[in-house]
Amino acid sequence: MTSEPMPRRLFAEALGTAFLLAAVVGSGIMAERLSDGNVALALLCNALATGAMLVVLITIFGPVSGAHFNPAVSLSMALERRLAWPDLVPYVAAQVAGAILGVAVAHVMFDLPVLQLSATARSGPGQWLGEAVATFGLVLTIFGCIARAPKLTPAAVGLYILAAYWFTSSTSFANPAVTVARALTNSFAGIAPSDAPAFIAAQLAGAALGLAAARLLWRDA
Amino acid sequence: MTSEPMPRRLFAEALGTAFLLAAVVGSGIMAERLSDGNVALALLCNALATGAMLVVLITIFGPVSGAHFNPAVSLSMALERRLAWPDLVPYVAAQVAGAILGVAVAHVMFDLPVLQLSATARSGPGQWLGEAVATFGLVLTIFGCIARAPKLTPAAVGLYILAAYWFTSSTSFANPAVTVARALTNSFAGIAPSDAPAFIAAQLAGAALGLAAARLLWRDA
Amino acid sequence: MTSEPMPRRLFAEALGTAFLLAAVVGSGIMAERLSDGNVALALLCNALATGAMLVVLITIFGPVSGAHFNPAVSLSMALERRLAWPDLVPYVAAQVAGAILGVAVAHVMFDLPVLQLSATARSGPGQWLGEAVATFGLVLTIFGCIARAPKLTPAAVGLYILAAYWFTSSTSFANPAVTVARALTNSFAGIAPSDAPAFIAAQLAGAALGLAAARLLWRDA
Amino acid sequence: MTSEPMPRRLFAEALGTAFLLAAVVGSGIMAERLSDGNVALALLCNALATGAMLVVLITIFGPVSGAHFNPAVSLSMALERRLAWPDLVPYVAAQVAGAILGVAVAHVMFDLPVLQLSATARSGPGQWLGEAVATFGLVLTIFGCIARAPKLTPAAVGLYILAAYWFTSSTSFANPAVTVARALTNSFAGIAPSDAPAFIAAQLAGAALGLAAARLLWRDA
Repeated sequence: MTSEPMPRRLFAEALGTAFLLAAVVGSGIMAERLSDGNVALALLCNALATGAMLVVLITIFGPVSGAHFNPAVSLSMALERRLAWPDLVPYVAAQVAGAILGVAVAHVMFDLPVLQLSATARSGPGQWLGEAVATFGLVLTIFGCIARAPKLTPAAVGLYILAAYWFTSSTSFANPAVTVARALTNSFAGIAPSDAPAFIAAQLAGAALGLAAARLLWRDA
Repeated sequence: MTSEPMPRRLFAEALGTAFLLAAVVGSGIMAERLSDGNVALALLCNALATGAMLVVLITIFGPVSGAHFNPAVSLSMALERRLAWPDLVPYVAAQVAGAILGVAVAHVMFDLPVLQLSATARSGPGQWLGEAVATFGLVLTIFGCIARAPKLTPAAVGLYILAAYWFTSSTSFANPAVTVARALTNSFAGIAPSDAPAFIAAQLAGAALGLAAARLLWRDA
Repeated sequence: MTSEPMPRRLFAEALGTAFLLAAVVGSGIMAERLSDGNVALALLCNALATGAMLVVLITIFGPVSGAHFNPAVSLSMALERRLAWPDLVPYVAAQVAGAILGVAVAHVMFDLPVLQLSATARSGPGQWLGEAVATFGLVLTIFGCIARAPKLTPAAVGLYILAAYWFTSSTSFANPAVTVARALTNSFAGIAPSDAPAFIAAQLAGAALGLAAARLLWRDA
Repeated sequence: MTSEPMPRRLFAEALGTAFLLAAVVGSGIMAERLSDGNVALALLCNALATGAMLVVLITIFGPVSGAHFNPAVSLSMALERRLAWPDLVPYVAAQVAGAILGVAVAHVMFDLPVLQLSATARSGPGQWLGEAVATFGLVLTIFGCIARAPKLTPAAVGLYILAAYWFTSSTSFANPAVTVARALTNSFAGIAPSDAPAFIAAQLAGAALGLAAARLLWRDA
């Protein structure tokens, strides 16, 4: 827990999540436009941009707010007593607001309607398992770093997400705020709004399991 | 050697190897599906995902179990008295079980049969030399880092494997547990079961030579 | 502020900016020539080369001159009292001269006319917002690192620019000296001279906002 | 200068240069075979494998021999009194022998004739300037790191070479031992033997200038 004043922490969560979503959605738009229909190439550029941005954002905002940018992470932190419970709702609100702002900025940069509804279907048990695995691994990565190598958290999270884009069938949203915001873009990174709730449920389940595993692995005996 | 209790260490080895295989096989499936027949692009995505994941896994599981995820590495560690001999068999069992679990999870995420037999032929003296060189270099990297730069081990191993995917003719399995598990997927990363034993023999030979070279290079005079 | 003598600092700014531009323009030429018309692939190679080079240049020149390579950054540093005001004009002059030299060297390496005028249109409100966002994020990254993680500055800036190539609609020039110099190449990385002033104005606006945000986030209360 | 015994240092130089060349040539062969004629993609994979391998090799062999792997670097080190003059010839011999061994191993792995003569023309003033610039920057990177950030040398050199593959017209050999060895492979990474001497001359000129610049920048006043 940082000792920074709450408004500063919420500003960091909102601004960081906005940049994260601008990176996810903006690089998705750019990559799709330029990649001549090769989806692997587009996803590679999208994944590299997202992973690189995460390293930067966690480096600079971590000391201010913890750099969660993710309601599933904030909830896990609260369960671990690393975030005061009364701070949880403001954190999540800042994350969701920032995420939507980031999508809007990406759209305006690329001359698209400010907010849209995605028509990209992302559904089915395989993808739900993908989201659960993705969030399980993310929570494991974060708590493993906190316990044994805190300075490596930014790099580890960025590399984890880079990998998870590829090895999970859902391309690893792993974040409820990201999921909500990506429902509002009808571009490469979008998800149909009706498919979002199942993704978020799978993420929360994965986070809970990740937290349980982290306790087995790194809690002092 | 860590002082963590054995069940925790075995859990770390199994879970880490599961994630490693999920990354190898999952990203191989995703990359092959999206890359429009361009094998170099698919292998690039596969290699980046694997390398990135290795950095993360060694960072978080290293302090628990040593993060071997590899019977050839555990055997080398035992020979160097960095793993107690009675721990070797449980370590290898945890690695193999975890590896198979990881392949199964990857398959379920991508809506494929849980376990399969690979039909991908990988054989011949060139590829066997490739596996020997790959494992030689991996063991050299690990013991060089332990001797002179232990904090850099996760990054060095991840970067080494990223490179070795490309410069060895076998795409660098370099790991008997990985080889067994990859025999159980008929996807991009698979290897026909009948070709696996020669790969494993080459890996063990390479590891032995790597250990000998490491002793010449870094053992205190 | 470093205590190095001024001629050495100006040499570092000029040489570093020259290498930055050689990297941006040279890799753009190479990538365009080899990529068979796939613009995403060309931009990926261009972005990786630029980001990698930035990490190197900030690592080696940072202790000499601060490694700004960017008039918008030098101006922000002066406003933060991290660069003496009388040093600002010489810094900017060294950066612009170095940038033009770098473009010229890239052209000669690739057997092209030493200096050229770009015919690449880059204009419109979307791209101007892109430049403002890009420079806002760059300034935020720099001051966030200075405040909380100074040793990570080279890596963070390199990764930020790698991401920003992709998520901003303008591919993130984010630097008035770079903009002037890129007006002098009629290759992949060029910008028509008539489009440069609006880019520079957007960059300065973004830098000012970034500095304001940085003060809110990291200034000691 | 390290205090390791000379045979161990020469073993490290030979083995490290062998791995470097195996990486350069092996990944070039693999990338060319798989990339379906897209040269940018092949060069990207080649560059990433080389850069990643360099980081690893300098990390593990640096504490033994300095990890030069490059006669131009060893000569610069001797001029800077960081390598004893009598050690220079053995170092260069070990590097050249290791480099040729590495090429041979790459060929055998890929079922090709052990040694070959390249037919790839690489010539002309543009490419010679490319080699001079590449080696100038390499020497600058090395001495800048030694002076101000020694622990970052492996990462900086790897990232520099990754960038220089792309921004120099010659794809940055920057190393006489590498040049000799690459004359002995008729694959993606080859250079016609008759074109090698001019490359080496340009490299030595670039190294000399790089050393001069390094003295201006980092020598204590």
